[in-house]
Amino acid sequence: MDSLQLTRCSINTATLGHREPIDVSIDRIAKAGFGGLAPWRHEVEAADVSKIAKQIRALDLKVTGYCRSTYFPASTREQRLANVQSNVRALNDAAELGAKCFVMVVGGLPEGSRDLSAARMQVQDGIAALLQEARNLAVPLAIEPLHPMYAGERSVVNTIDQAQAIARELDPHNDGFLGFAVDVYHCWWDPQLEGALTSIGNENRILAYHVSDWLAPTTDLLLDRGMMGDGVIDLKRFRQSVENAGYAGMVEVEIFSRDNWWNLPPDLVLQTCAERLQSVC
Amino acid sequence: MDSLQLTRCSINTATLGHREPIDVSIDRIAKAGFGGLAPWRHEVEAADVSKIAKQIRALDLKVTGYCRSTYFPASTREQRLANVQSNVRALNDAAELGAKCFVMVVGGLPEGSRDLSAARMQVQDGIAALLQEARNLAVPLAIEPLHPMYAGERSVVNTIDQAQAIARELDPHNDGFLGFAVDVYHCWWDPQLEGALTSIGNENRILAYHVSDWLAPTTDLLLDRGMMGDGVIDLKRFRQSVENAGYAGMVEVEIFSRDNWWNLPPDLVLQTCAERLQSVC
Repeated sequence: MDSLQLTRCSINTATLGHREPIDVSIDRIAKAGFGGLAPWRHEVEAADVSKIAKQIRALDLKVTGYCRSTYFPASTREQRLANVQSNVRALNDAAELGAKCFVMVVGGLPEGSRDLSAARMQVQDGIAALLQEARNLAVPLAIEPLHPMYAGERSVVNTIDQAQAIARELDPHNDGFLGFAVDVYHCWWDPQLEGALTSIGNENRILAYHVSDWLAPTTDLLLDRGMMGDGVIDLKRFRQSVENAGYAGMVEVEIFSRDNWWNLPPDLVLQTCAERLQSVC
Repeated sequence: MDSLQLTRCSINTATLGHREPIDVSIDRIAKAGFGGLAPWRHEVEAADVSKIAKQIRALDLKVTGYCRSTYFPASTREQRLANVQSNVRALNDAAELGAKCFVMVVGGLPEGSRDLSAARMQVQDGIAALLQEARNLAVPLAIEPLHPMYAGERSVVNTIDQAQAIARELDPHNDGFLGFAVDVYHCWWDPQLEGALTSIGNENRILAYHVSDWLAPTTDLLLDRGMMGDGVIDLKRFRQSVENAGYAGMVEVEIFSRDNWWNLPPDLVLQTCAERLQSVC
């Protein structure tokens, strides 16, 4: 398998720990030679969206995803509608940024609920409500299945199979605006993963591919992701599977690491990402 | 659905935090009115197995499972054989204790390995090597799928579907000595769970049913399980699914809770388990 070129690689700004304004991060990422980035809403909304979009275009960077959706499930219908509206506003920003997709972290169980099936149905309804707006704005929606350890609070969509079933039901003709993001951290353990990726055949709905590594041991459920090569995931094999399934897009690094990488100089983090992307991914 | 009778309920001794010798725990469990228990090897091996077996019989307690297998995967063939031999010794103790099953926590990736498929194959080979001995001793092997967050270090078997596939391949005629343990903590999130349990029809391989609860938030990957009713799992619905699939055995409580229940008086923990089993499970 070919070694990755940095121009095919993207940095999710969470990897830098959100320690600097977004325009500073963008300059660092471009200077380090990466071909793209994936910014977060709270960073972009704290700045001027048009200005950020202009900076990104001037540096010839791709936006591999805009992070992330407001959670869909809620206890009341009013709140669920408000969540969809919040996502419509973010979609407009995603369009202005020229994002390849809007990353959908769908949300967990509503406060006080134990009804997982109902929450999953609310997610599906929320995505359905957003899809036409995504088509209008030409920003694909990428459902990101999250690791099952996040089913309670962050995402009731936990496998690629599940994301694919939702996409097929809501968008049977696959017109390009509903698919999913594959993140190795969330999916690496899944015994049905190869099958799920293979079975799609010509129906490629992979809109983004995120890398990091699973540390053994992992000390925190959220903020202890590893740098590629420091954990137990066979990243080359994983990329092969994703590419065999038809994905030809960029490889995005997304590392939440409160006690390690977020304490190191941003340029050192970027340099390490660059090295590892080219050696172990 | 019927409320649970305590005589149908069992206490996994980990729930008490392994703070007292096993014979003391057994007396407490019997006195609290439970119909069974599931002891751990390190407790039993620290005592006299025959004496413990005699105490359990005298108190008319069932042993819902013997915890747990030595992990199968290893870097060398010698170590893998040694792991199987360790399990054969434990199976003999399980037989002496009259255990309903030997709980198989199968192990994660061997040190330094990133080959998940190979580890899964090693697990299957290890179970195959143990199965005849299980038949000889009349102790069923219960593969326990562990939550995907344990795939790196504790178990490369992570779903009921996966456990069932292994059981079907190694024991196609289902003669009663190879099945699986269903633990709500490990499986509650699985979108394919209902299907996996339903599809087995008359082929009931559920050998044990473990309850606790998933706390939101969860603060530790291993030692922050919740008491039934304190988390987000719909336990009555879960038991209904398991019983619909043909399970008519006991309900075992297994709670690892370093910062909460393991600090409370054992009799209070047992009393709380009794109340919750009868109200929310």
